[in-house]
Amino acid sequence: MTPTITAFKASPDRGRGLARDMRVRWAFEEVGQPYEVRLLTFAEMKEPAHLALHPFGQIPTYEDSELALFESGAIILHVAQQHAGLLPDDADGRARATNWMFAALNTVEPPILELQTAMFAERDRSWFAERLALIHDQIRVRLGQLSQRLGEADWLDGHFSAGDLMMVSVLQRLGSSGLVAEFPNLAAYVARAEARPAYRRAFDAQYAVFLAASAG
Amino acid sequence: MTPTITAFKASPDRGRGLARDMRVRWAFEEVGQPYEVRLLTFAEMKEPAHLALHPFGQIPTYEDSELALFESGAIILHVAQQHAGLLPDDADGRARATNWMFAALNTVEPPILELQTAMFAERDRSWFAERLALIHDQIRVRLGQLSQRLGEADWLDGHFSAGDLMMVSVLQRLGSSGLVAEFPNLAAYVARAEARPAYRRAFDAQYAVFLAASAG
Repeated sequence: MTPTITAFKASPDRGRGLARDMRVRWAFEEVGQPYEVRLLTFAEMKEPAHLALHPFGQIPTYEDSELALFESGAIILHVAQQHAGLLPDDADGRARATNWMFAALNTVEPPILELQTAMFAERDRSWFAERLALIHDQIRVRLGQLSQRLGEADWLDGHFSAGDLMMVSVLQRLGSSGLVAEFPNLAAYVARAEARPAYRRAFDAQYAVFLAASAG
Repeated sequence: MTPTITAFKASPDRGRGLARDMRVRWAFEEVGQPYEVRLLTFAEMKEPAHLALHPFGQIPTYEDSELALFESGAIILHVAQQHAGLLPDDADGRARATNWMFAALNTVEPPILELQTAMFAERDRSWFAERLALIHDQIRVRLGQLSQRLGEADWLDGHFSAGDLMMVSVLQRLGSSGLVAEFPNLAAYVARAEARPAYRRAFDAQYAVFLAASAG
């Protein structure tokens, strides 16, 4: 059975691929698993039918014949465990790739989420400029540590894995801040991932939704 | 081989069990896996030997004969996959429990981490009171959604799992804020978890480290 995910009918990022369905689409493309997409308005995301699937009223969700999931990390790990292409064959390598997924989501992403919240909720406050500088410095600490670890390698632990997919997806959220560009090896790492054919297919698919919404 | 984790030699939480080694200790206790602990000072955490193990210079880490991990989420998932007691037997149930681990770490914890950062870095700023109110409201949204989903159930998805272990560990970080108490079913959920013998053993073990550090 083809799994179904949910995504924004009209993504607030205007098709830049920053919504969390992009990560899941990319994972499907990497492993060659076809998928279907059900588009939701913001109002629909807060209705009981969707809250039954996603208690926090967000996207994406994942549904196959019997299973429903709602966290992009868990969805991607599930897809990666079911199909070859996103995790190494050996158990220790799989644990290390999973470790990088958690590092992306729980160590690198939190200050980036804080930046996004501040851009949304604190832009008009008197303290915004000072806060922005504080958050940028927090993010720089994490990026510096990540840059140090990556060094001259192409990927975080040998071959491209779900850990890289997640880390790049998190770094992309810094797009317009200029912070990733301060670390040339991280900028090259993101560019390397974005050049993957699976990434391009996923990007084009979510961009097509934006174009359709704009035309509609 | 008995795995070894790292923990603070002198935890900044003064033995309240809020450092991330507590989650891992609790997981070991739930599955009955003995473990060893290597204690680190803050200075040692930033030295090359530890950074080779943990690129972000934090605790805990996990080492067994061949494998090294550094994210508490990945460590607990690895322990749960290797031993019975923290994940259901069926594949779909395991995916759902893993989903709750990611929900704890990537949906519920980020605003709680933001609160902790603000308490640490913004307490002396002119805007602190206003910011605190904003963050508390963000956290209340998440807690309200979680409370709604939990309802009258004991645990998030049937039996106690690694998902509950992680969610409770995240909620505990709100300890002194009074926010969890605003949702009586969440307060009861945390208390239910803290009454588990495995939790008590883990708590006592990390508390003994604090007592020893205080005495020394």
